[in-house]
Amino acid sequence: MNFRSDNTAPAAPEIIAALTSVNEGAASAYGEDQWSKRLDEAFSALFEREVRVFTLASGTAANAISVATLAPSWGAILCHREAHIECDECGASEFYSGGAKLVLLDGDAAKLTPDGLREGVARNARGIHSVVPSAVSISQTTERGAVYRPAEVAALGEVAKHAGLGFHMDGARFGNAVAALGCKPADITWRAGVDLLSFGATKNGAIAAEAIICFDTARAEEIARRRKRSGHLLSKGRFVAAQLLAYIKDDFWLTSARRSNALARQLGEAAAPFLSHPAESNQIFIKPGADGLRKLRANGAEFYDWGVDGSGEARLVVSWNQSEADIEKMCLLLRSLS
Amino acid sequence: MNFRSDNTAPAAPEIIAALTSVNEGAASAYGEDQWSKRLDEAFSALFEREVRVFTLASGTAANAISVATLAPSWGAILCHREAHIECDECGASEFYSGGAKLVLLDGDAAKLTPDGLREGVARNARGIHSVVPSAVSISQTTERGAVYRPAEVAALGEVAKHAGLGFHMDGARFGNAVAALGCKPADITWRAGVDLLSFGATKNGAIAAEAIICFDTARAEEIARRRKRSGHLLSKGRFVAAQLLAYIKDDFWLTSARRSNALARQLGEAAAPFLSHPAESNQIFIKPGADGLRKLRANGAEFYDWGVDGSGEARLVVSWNQSEADIEKMCLLLRSLS
Amino acid sequence: MNFRSDNTAPAAPEIIAALTSVNEGAASAYGEDQWSKRLDEAFSALFEREVRVFTLASGTAANAISVATLAPSWGAILCHREAHIECDECGASEFYSGGAKLVLLDGDAAKLTPDGLREGVARNARGIHSVVPSAVSISQTTERGAVYRPAEVAALGEVAKHAGLGFHMDGARFGNAVAALGCKPADITWRAGVDLLSFGATKNGAIAAEAIICFDTARAEEIARRRKRSGHLLSKGRFVAAQLLAYIKDDFWLTSARRSNALARQLGEAAAPFLSHPAESNQIFIKPGADGLRKLRANGAEFYDWGVDGSGEARLVVSWNQSEADIEKMCLLLRSLS
Amino acid sequence: MNFRSDNTAPAAPEIIAALTSVNEGAASAYGEDQWSKRLDEAFSALFEREVRVFTLASGTAANAISVATLAPSWGAILCHREAHIECDECGASEFYSGGAKLVLLDGDAAKLTPDGLREGVARNARGIHSVVPSAVSISQTTERGAVYRPAEVAALGEVAKHAGLGFHMDGARFGNAVAALGCKPADITWRAGVDLLSFGATKNGAIAAEAIICFDTARAEEIARRRKRSGHLLSKGRFVAAQLLAYIKDDFWLTSARRSNALARQLGEAAAPFLSHPAESNQIFIKPGADGLRKLRANGAEFYDWGVDGSGEARLVVSWNQSEADIEKMCLLLRSLS
Repeated sequence: MNFRSDNTAPAAPEIIAALTSVNEGAASAYGEDQWSKRLDEAFSALFEREVRVFTLASGTAANAISVATLAPSWGAILCHREAHIECDECGASEFYSGGAKLVLLDGDAAKLTPDGLREGVARNARGIHSVVPSAVSISQTTERGAVYRPAEVAALGEVAKHAGLGFHMDGARFGNAVAALGCKPADITWRAGVDLLSFGATKNGAIAAEAIICFDTARAEEIARRRKRSGHLLSKGRFVAAQLLAYIKDDFWLTSARRSNALARQLGEAAAPFLSHPAESNQIFIKPGADGLRKLRANGAEFYDWGVDGSGEARLVVSWNQSEADIEKMCLLLRSLS
Repeated sequence: MNFRSDNTAPAAPEIIAALTSVNEGAASAYGEDQWSKRLDEAFSALFEREVRVFTLASGTAANAISVATLAPSWGAILCHREAHIECDECGASEFYSGGAKLVLLDGDAAKLTPDGLREGVARNARGIHSVVPSAVSISQTTERGAVYRPAEVAALGEVAKHAGLGFHMDGARFGNAVAALGCKPADITWRAGVDLLSFGATKNGAIAAEAIICFDTARAEEIARRRKRSGHLLSKGRFVAAQLLAYIKDDFWLTSARRSNALARQLGEAAAPFLSHPAESNQIFIKPGADGLRKLRANGAEFYDWGVDGSGEARLVVSWNQSEADIEKMCLLLRSLS
Repeated sequence: MNFRSDNTAPAAPEIIAALTSVNEGAASAYGEDQWSKRLDEAFSALFEREVRVFTLASGTAANAISVATLAPSWGAILCHREAHIECDECGASEFYSGGAKLVLLDGDAAKLTPDGLREGVARNARGIHSVVPSAVSISQTTERGAVYRPAEVAALGEVAKHAGLGFHMDGARFGNAVAALGCKPADITWRAGVDLLSFGATKNGAIAAEAIICFDTARAEEIARRRKRSGHLLSKGRFVAAQLLAYIKDDFWLTSARRSNALARQLGEAAAPFLSHPAESNQIFIKPGADGLRKLRANGAEFYDWGVDGSGEARLVVSWNQSEADIEKMCLLLRSLS
Repeated sequence: MNFRSDNTAPAAPEIIAALTSVNEGAASAYGEDQWSKRLDEAFSALFEREVRVFTLASGTAANAISVATLAPSWGAILCHREAHIECDECGASEFYSGGAKLVLLDGDAAKLTPDGLREGVARNARGIHSVVPSAVSISQTTERGAVYRPAEVAALGEVAKHAGLGFHMDGARFGNAVAALGCKPADITWRAGVDLLSFGATKNGAIAAEAIICFDTARAEEIARRRKRSGHLLSKGRFVAAQLLAYIKDDFWLTSARRSNALARQLGEAAAPFLSHPAESNQIFIKPGADGLRKLRANGAEFYDWGVDGSGEARLVVSWNQSEADIEKMCLLLRSLS
């Protein structure tokens, strides 16, 4: 019963098959192969408009290159206090941007609110002495498993537009968000004002395949340079492209995300009395207290503590390949805590 | 007859097999999986001393993180005028180092000489107004297919030590060098004064697998931070580790490199009258003039022009999977030019 | 009645005299003149130990070079939420450090506490995914006019030492702190664990003269390089050196600071009912409400609002050349608000 | 007979007088004082068009902020191999730009030529793998005392425009150039395609006063941010502004430069047989051999060796306050070497 993280899971057979299927003959390097060249078209279809796709081997790189493209080195990037770019990337955004400042905002379930964003901009635009609010970055799904509705993203997009901010979405679990909402990918991205999306496939079944989806094509050249310069333009690009093409083919990504969301919902129901946030995607947060967590672990569950030390809170993440047996057993365990 | 580059080749079956063999069950993320954890031991055995291994998805990242670790932002990194870090990485070394300066030296076949290095240090150490010579970086094999002998590396290592320079080796084709020399990997690295090695596997049969081999373990923590911060610590680390373990298992890497070196030597013999550098590894450089190159292309050969525009010089690279039929046909063609 | 800031004041006659007195004949450039060369000795005497002095034209540069010297680019610099380096330097610390992160702590009167610092370190040292707590920076006097007692600095120094943090003090108003405490400069710096001090003279009577006082001489070379590389090593160094030598000669700096502290104390007494912080140096903070501030302004007082917008709080700064008439008039005004 | 450098000279009485004349009463800080506010107008008149002026305390900062504004971090800045930004600023341009690369070109008397520039652009624009030629920087007067004619600057401006390069001029000795040419400042700057000028006053009589003259006002905001962020926006801005206003008032700067140029021409005539470059401004370069230099020094002349070690070449710089007695004596000495 491993609920540590969806990045402990292996790759899906569909992804492995795609990778091996392109392993034949010579192919031009550095993204000039036939598979890489199909990415723009495939993702433009998926997103219902012209986009430019930049593959990368990690989500940290996708995030950091995105925010560095949206904010100058003297800029401020507004994000949630628990955002991955703030807490888990060893300062990657600061590195790529040449020292932009992350301004931390609060909000339930790791979500930003339009008012909070507006207030954050106002508080940090103080003339020549302060950094310049330049970008906002949100995570979809959030670090607390919540999902922004299309209207919520659009409301933030409005504030961003009004304040002259670039808008980035960290979609490490973008598939889980789209699956949970049952919306079109466009509805929570460019239609809602998002300029750049970190599109993650690794957690949801790939080996190592992430991409920046660039809706603002005027920024494409800069992204290309930042990717190359940081060593993220891989020579044998076909292997990343193949993963991404397979990932979105025949709704593989959504089928996979729907399954893990559904299983997580089951966990959420079993843990209802002590859920610390609503169960909206494939991550749930429980707060049964220290004794409860001990009991879960004693019975074979693996997971990370979360939040403030000693608070008795934990995170459970359902992976794409989680067995139903795991879920059933875990549900029983969770119910036994109430 | 594609002699464009060894990075246009697919991956070897051994590498694919290794990758699929680890695709089972949960594995801790970010290098804490069982395969990643075996890397230090496996490479310590290969290099006959304790080393620390940092996997990366690209050689550009390996090079740039290495030189940034050896030189402060106000430092100078001495390298050959044709070095990959100078010509082909879009300023990655400058980016990672926070703006160190690459000082360009000359030398036949893209090799540095002890005298040239000494002179380069002297010319660039001019007190507070100039940057501080801090590191030297050489490529093994070089950008002109040459191979440094162990004594040649050691002589540069002596100069580096005397001048207080860190010593980096760009080993994108390290396997071809070891195969050509028939030496121990240690003989051309730490025994000769090298501090950090970019160990490349991608060009010689892997999908995307590179590593920094760290001989100076005091620098390991800094490398770890730079890797994480740049987005090169992959979450599903097992897939890179598996490639590297398979790559060095049972001398796969050397067998593969020996073959491409031998085939390139055949090309070199066929092109003897117009070789621009001795054929020492899997890259050869020919200068049959513009007409000669045209004739080669007209007969189906693919390759890049090299050197000064219009000089009639070209590079031919033999890949690990180059067919013997290709070589035979190309040899005939080359002989026909004399 | 201008209480806007002590940097709106002119320079003291002693400083002007010093500057003109060195304006004769040739003098070696870039800090090799006779006056610059006397700085180390003069400040070593003042601080009762060997120090290295690096002159600069601005306090922002002194602060940013200091923290960049104490923290690597992947480091965290802990400071108060209202610290000058966070709020008023347009991200200079991030720029100079190559993207280190400022971690913001709370504390009354803009002071850090040992517990707060300890907790901030613990919360931000989370393995490879987070930045590395590397330095702490405090302001003496603080941005709220408070003064750290020697034992308070030493207690923070203990925490810093235990946690492996470098310790920087922003002494833009260092003279006001020493004058207020009646202590030795050493008591609140190196004896209490401070590694680098930004020693400000500009606000207390100079034209443009700041210095980094380096107690950890192993870091001197790095500071020298960072200063040169950022354009802060002035060619005609004698003019800055002359200001600093005159500033500390015959206790000019303390005499001047004592006077402004004393005048500010008078304001503090007059404003006692609505002081938002104790009056400890030459800055006082009052919170008479929006009507009160309006009344002060209507009667000719100039000053900046402070704190949260609309809170009715303001800052009054007494400059070295503030007239006693100003103070008397302002005291009457302040008393009239109660 | 000190001919070491014009930055060993004191400040002119006119500059000192200006500085003391503004030392009265309160003045808004950070460039909001009445003198700073007059700079734009005063320099717009001087340059016959609207310009924005950014004062700085050093020429290194002026240069580095300028080129960082014209080139992205993945850009290349083309300049002469002997340019001050390459040789004498400890990598400031790389620091400010976040790691742009300086591409070094050759040319007599440290001058770039249109063909050399065109060739440098072509050689360094090699697609995604190389940095992007983004700016050109020339020095007027050059590091070898030469002066670009208006048509020469314009020819470079044409190449820059065609290649999409920003155009920067390092005018540390801009006054000597204008004085030598007898042209309008506009003729060798914006009329010839220059976007940003480092306007130096320090070497020609000021204490510490430099400015970026911004002809491309769309870049003004970025320059303002870079200046603030690097600690070059001084709080008591009036003292720098006063120097610059006095410097250009009543042609003080040109009168001063004409005098040092004329005296240098005298030296040039006396040294005619062994001049290594024509004497065009206040710096001359002589190559009388090692014995000649020894003899000059033995007779009391002070100066720096120049060029390759042991080449017997030297630089003589005439300062604004050089005595005619010095010149006469030196001329005799120089003639005695022939």
